[in-house]
Amino acid sequence: MAPTAASGTGAPRLPLGIGRLVAADLGALRLEAGGAPLPATLAYRHDGPGPDAPQVLVIHALTGSADAAGDWWAPLIGPGHVFDTDVVGVLCANLLGGVYGSTGPTTVDPATGRPFGRAFPAVSARDEARALWALADALGIERFVLVSGGSLGGMIALEWAVLFPDDVDAIVPIASTHALRAQGVAWNAIARNAITSDPDWQGGDYYGSGRSPASGMAVARMIGHITYLSSEALDMKFGRRLQFADDIRYTLTEPEFQVESYLRHQGEAFVKRFDANTYLCLSRALTYFDLAREHGGGRLADAVRPIKARTLLIAFSSDWLYPPSDSTELAAALRAAGKDVELHVIDAPYGHDCFLLEEGRQIPLIRKFLALDN
Amino acid sequence: MAPTAASGTGAPRLPLGIGRLVAADLGALRLEAGGAPLPATLAYRHDGPGPDAPQVLVIHALTGSADAAGDWWAPLIGPGHVFDTDVVGVLCANLLGGVYGSTGPTTVDPATGRPFGRAFPAVSARDEARALWALADALGIERFVLVSGGSLGGMIALEWAVLFPDDVDAIVPIASTHALRAQGVAWNAIARNAITSDPDWQGGDYYGSGRSPASGMAVARMIGHITYLSSEALDMKFGRRLQFADDIRYTLTEPEFQVESYLRHQGEAFVKRFDANTYLCLSRALTYFDLAREHGGGRLADAVRPIKARTLLIAFSSDWLYPPSDSTELAAALRAAGKDVELHVIDAPYGHDCFLLEEGRQIPLIRKFLALDN
Repeated sequence: MAPTAASGTGAPRLPLGIGRLVAADLGALRLEAGGAPLPATLAYRHDGPGPDAPQVLVIHALTGSADAAGDWWAPLIGPGHVFDTDVVGVLCANLLGGVYGSTGPTTVDPATGRPFGRAFPAVSARDEARALWALADALGIERFVLVSGGSLGGMIALEWAVLFPDDVDAIVPIASTHALRAQGVAWNAIARNAITSDPDWQGGDYYGSGRSPASGMAVARMIGHITYLSSEALDMKFGRRLQFADDIRYTLTEPEFQVESYLRHQGEAFVKRFDANTYLCLSRALTYFDLAREHGGGRLADAVRPIKARTLLIAFSSDWLYPPSDSTELAAALRAAGKDVELHVIDAPYGHDCFLLEEGRQIPLIRKFLALDN
Repeated sequence: MAPTAASGTGAPRLPLGIGRLVAADLGALRLEAGGAPLPATLAYRHDGPGPDAPQVLVIHALTGSADAAGDWWAPLIGPGHVFDTDVVGVLCANLLGGVYGSTGPTTVDPATGRPFGRAFPAVSARDEARALWALADALGIERFVLVSGGSLGGMIALEWAVLFPDDVDAIVPIASTHALRAQGVAWNAIARNAITSDPDWQGGDYYGSGRSPASGMAVARMIGHITYLSSEALDMKFGRRLQFADDIRYTLTEPEFQVESYLRHQGEAFVKRFDANTYLCLSRALTYFDLAREHGGGRLADAVRPIKARTLLIAFSSDWLYPPSDSTELAAALRAAGKDVELHVIDAPYGHDCFLLEEGRQIPLIRKFLALDN
């Protein structure tokens, strides 16, 4: 990595090519929001060869984990896949503030002996990029041939390219944006409001109380799911089909339509696997993210000026939460700044979820962009 | 009205041309959901001449009142307006289940001496049309030259035209549909879920407890507001402008963006003016509404066959909750059934709210449709 690294010896201190999740103690990180430096651990997984080979960094979205290779991006990572772990090393970490092994609101604060809870500091995309940089540094990885991710992960990939232009050759932000639009800001605010207005949230200090804001979390997730899918996809998947009967049953709190049953299931499943304060933390990070404001005094073309990486933007025609027009704006700004950028809008009906559903159509674009077929 | 009217004497029993809200006791109504007949009062307002002159029925949307002439549709109703009360009588009633004077969940159940609360029966668009018919009958109004309304009001106008084809010359459903799509069903379900999962809802029996599901209601309203506006309108109105400062403040439960502040305000204002069980009742009515299922065995062209009224459908290009494609489907079904139908899609950026914001562009269409300029 760049010589600004405090521990930039290039010698790995942590295991590589492990193919399973482990935790990396990164020491105390300074955060953009100020306050005391945060003792940070990131859970990560590294597959494939070490720093003598090219390295790829993949970054997860709002509720993801470090297990890209085994779970949410498995079709892209492994021997013979587009990120071929016979040839390249692939690193993925649970984000700072996350709940899958990294330091976050559920972590015990060494200063108090109790979980951080609401006291966990706000983190930004910049903090995330810096934490990932520190992890890479600890692994002896000096640069990535590619940094990629979808949604929030794409935001952090952009942030990385601006902050560490010499440490990355190419970025592929997918179904992402340089800044959420007002509607996206609003959906996130409503989801967070559903959580914080649930009395079981208890001001964020619900750990160990035997109660957690399950109702608010379920509502937040329901909102999320509907924004992740297109109206057309919902019509195809559910239409107005009833769940249990041939006719309306006039029940009040039980689902009647299949889509209502789906929502209930998604809400319940999410409550079991995620944490409310973690949701609040990462939802705020993606709401705050604004490349133009943070790096360009409000001008996107100025903000992207430091970028040296080649950029491939992938957007989906039916994604109304991270609409293709955002990627078009970003591509125009990159071009205006003289950067090497490609934008592909994939015509697909599943909305924002296309990021995880349409790998088959993203992989050839990434292969071609990386000239992997040459 | 048609001879099926129990009290169809044609002689008014209730005041007309009053220009203020009064209550009409309609006796006990049988509801589609079954159960005991419901003793029903509708609050209504009638302006202009009585049944010797032509009569217009206007129907409100989800959270509206009988005060179309004085409030939500004032630009259309009055001397010299498109519904010229020097020439036509205009009737508007608070819907059954409503909170502005009609029998609804907040009404005291004579059988128990306590508010109906959750025990208030589910009502359907058909029940609403029948209740309005009973009101018209009690007023001595035998037919309407026009039945019109937006959103839920448009659904009930359609229902009226199917149920009482001989009692209406023309209908104008605006920003409405023959059946909500899966996404609209989902938004309504999430909003209701936010209310019913608020512990202060107390299973619906919150009246007199000193607590009401204000948090859930606020979340429901926030969801509503974002679905009523287009993404473009939110960008124009708020963008990513911060509310209080030049930079992010990293607060957790206070609004930072203007759109967040707007949402909070809308939530708080709604809690003051509306009732949670009423919201649940009318939200279910509009979710259930499905003209094809109820009247056509699933076939829309069959469902509309009884209609004799000329139909003007008005939709708005940016309305994604009641998209123009719904009106296109409905217009096609009406044409297939040999009906007289016009569809106008107004190109305007404000989403579903165009119904109440773009009167200036609706009025000429209605004037022309009614041949008022001839």
